[in-house]
Amino acid sequence: MEKISIGLLGLGTVGSGVVKVIRNHQDKLVHGVGCPVGIKKILVQDSAKSREVVVDQELVTLDPNEIVDDPAIDIIVEVMGGIEETRKLLLRALEKKKHVVTANKDLMALHGPELLETASKNGCDLFYEASVAGGIPILRSVADGFASDRIHKIIGIVNGTTNYILTKMSDEGKSYEEALNEAQKLGFAESDPEADVEGIDAARKMAILSTLGFSMNVGLHDVRFKGITNISQQDIEYGKRLGYTMKLIGVAERDGEKIDVTVQPALVTDSHPLAAVKNENNAVYVYGEAVGETMFYGPGAGSLPTATAVVSDLVGVMRNMRLGVNGHSAAFPQFTKKMMEADEVFKKYFIRLVVEDEVGTLAEVTTLFSKEGISVEKIWQNPTRGSISEIVLVTHKASRKSFQDILVELNDSSVVKHVGSYYRIEI
Amino acid sequence: MEKISIGLLGLGTVGSGVVKVIRNHQDKLVHGVGCPVGIKKILVQDSAKSREVVVDQELVTLDPNEIVDDPAIDIIVEVMGGIEETRKLLLRALEKKKHVVTANKDLMALHGPELLETASKNGCDLFYEASVAGGIPILRSVADGFASDRIHKIIGIVNGTTNYILTKMSDEGKSYEEALNEAQKLGFAESDPEADVEGIDAARKMAILSTLGFSMNVGLHDVRFKGITNISQQDIEYGKRLGYTMKLIGVAERDGEKIDVTVQPALVTDSHPLAAVKNENNAVYVYGEAVGETMFYGPGAGSLPTATAVVSDLVGVMRNMRLGVNGHSAAFPQFTKKMMEADEVFKKYFIRLVVEDEVGTLAEVTTLFSKEGISVEKIWQNPTRGSISEIVLVTHKASRKSFQDILVELNDSSVVKHVGSYYRIEI
Repeated sequence: MEKISIGLLGLGTVGSGVVKVIRNHQDKLVHGVGCPVGIKKILVQDSAKSREVVVDQELVTLDPNEIVDDPAIDIIVEVMGGIEETRKLLLRALEKKKHVVTANKDLMALHGPELLETASKNGCDLFYEASVAGGIPILRSVADGFASDRIHKIIGIVNGTTNYILTKMSDEGKSYEEALNEAQKLGFAESDPEADVEGIDAARKMAILSTLGFSMNVGLHDVRFKGITNISQQDIEYGKRLGYTMKLIGVAERDGEKIDVTVQPALVTDSHPLAAVKNENNAVYVYGEAVGETMFYGPGAGSLPTATAVVSDLVGVMRNMRLGVNGHSAAFPQFTKKMMEADEVFKKYFIRLVVEDEVGTLAEVTTLFSKEGISVEKIWQNPTRGSISEIVLVTHKASRKSFQDILVELNDSSVVKHVGSYYRIEI
Repeated sequence: MEKISIGLLGLGTVGSGVVKVIRNHQDKLVHGVGCPVGIKKILVQDSAKSREVVVDQELVTLDPNEIVDDPAIDIIVEVMGGIEETRKLLLRALEKKKHVVTANKDLMALHGPELLETASKNGCDLFYEASVAGGIPILRSVADGFASDRIHKIIGIVNGTTNYILTKMSDEGKSYEEALNEAQKLGFAESDPEADVEGIDAARKMAILSTLGFSMNVGLHDVRFKGITNISQQDIEYGKRLGYTMKLIGVAERDGEKIDVTVQPALVTDSHPLAAVKNENNAVYVYGEAVGETMFYGPGAGSLPTATAVVSDLVGVMRNMRLGVNGHSAAFPQFTKKMMEADEVFKKYFIRLVVEDEVGTLAEVTTLFSKEGISVEKIWQNPTRGSISEIVLVTHKASRKSFQDILVELNDSSVVKHVGSYYRIEI
């Protein structure tokens, strides 16, 4: 090969980073790949827009076909986002035997299997390391590093935006709205933050991670997820008093042949390293039967970290091109997916209850729990205001089903005025 | 390929783990590789010895030639240790077109370039992930994950034995001898602990990591290393009072074209996550220009974690065999090695001095430092015993040369009775 030509779809935050990384590390790329690497065309939405990097106007196009139909382009780097249009474009590119590197977790969580299959059929590589945990090479580690181990649990903080917001709420006492505002000003949150704050982004990443980790086809619809929009400062404070930190936690776990994948705000023991993962950083724990506990930590987002992951994937594609072995890297799921039932997942829970401040209330509440077979680990009562009192309970491990049942019973109970917020205690 | 046959050199702790992992995860291996994987011969030193795993006596041999000369064996897994004999054996295996997976850091740090070149010439793979940080896929991450980034610093705890000893000394107040004894009883330290406690093992790993990270041929002789045998309980206590934890730290750093690689007991700020890496665990921070800070954490040693790394490498070799592309994975150094001089490495230092308890002593000592251009950040004086007093100083950043010079001057000074221990403050 004399030269490898890239078509870049998108020149936003990550796209600009990709241009910079390819420019700045050209010597390392030439050494690793064996020939120069250049960007031949760049798709933009608005050619007049001023950008973080200066690019030759001749490279820029508004028409994706100019890239997908160009026979001189070897690899497509997709950093434009979007789902349906992007899916069609990439399928067409793969059918024209172009390799694809993408940072698009939305697309991979929804259409990963279809795209990977099309790539494989056409002898093309489709790499997507940048779609999960930006600068941390976690997909590679899960796929290759533990190729010989059986992973039984993956737990982590995989969304930088929500972790930034929760850090500000927790460490600086900011309200959710203040923290979100600040994150938006600093570019850590989008102007429409829904996908992040509702947990959708994290759920997509957990779907991708569990697909690789458990070798099952896990889609977004398999992930039970909940966002951070209803967390109050009080929840965080009460958590602290009991020794916990609030985080948006993704958990994928396997028990025998069944799995459970969730994303939700949860409490983490203060002394656990996950509690110390601050701001926009990500951290993922992987538990293997043989290897035990390993952890990967790093920037979860940002222009250059994500671009580095994209360009490392590019290097992988180009090495395969040199050896003529593209299209063999995809690991197709080995197992049929089976999800755990509500009575098969056991967790500790934190729950707030507003109760009548009367003699015997506490006994009545704890009796309800014990009838449901849930034992209480900690209980803590807030000073009374008038005839109303608030109690916070931490349970021992209980099944999701038992916990759902106790919620119903607490709502029906005459001594409980109001069932407040509740969270899993994850670790 | 109908079946892949492995020759196993060594059936100690790691070798037994390899047998177990291959047996327990045969289904995952078949799925990943496309054919069954079996161990055809095992080299042992004593065929009568009882072991952690039961193996068919027919597989066992005392003669390495039976493995290296067997044309039916495709891959050699070397977990027997040793240097000169092992080097010859592996060179011969590579010349007979057998791929090699090794966990032997001693061998790789000393003869890595020769072995990798021989492998490449013969179209063979030579993988050695297990040689550094057992269960953490750190070499893969440095080589592939950051293929597009420029790494400027690698810092970490890469020896489990010494970290175990220092944890016990620090957290439980044990003496060095007590902690070493305990580590030996639990199998975390060898009966001859020299390579670990003198920092040689960690230095070998740092040589391997910097060779990959900086793309230069870094050998053991390029690493300045020091062990933990002279650390006193008092050093640890004084460090604690000033907010530091004692660790055996490996550091590889680059400034422009020059590098510096060291292993030494050093102080780490208590709030830094490295301070919280306990017992036999390892953690490695990698700093890339684009990606920023990333961290990898996990078990640094142990039978199954290390075996998992070995078998993951095996899977890599076997996938390459299926594609017919063995012998292309080695990344040969791109740059000529240049080491930093003593006046180019800047660090903060902690130093203990025994001085005369007289008016003006403190002023005289600090004047010595300031004449050498070293400013003092913290100073702390121990209650006097008789006419003798001890002071502990923490400097701002100073070059290694300045610090060596001040050591000479302190030794010559009439007010300093004795220059005690000193440590770099690494992070």
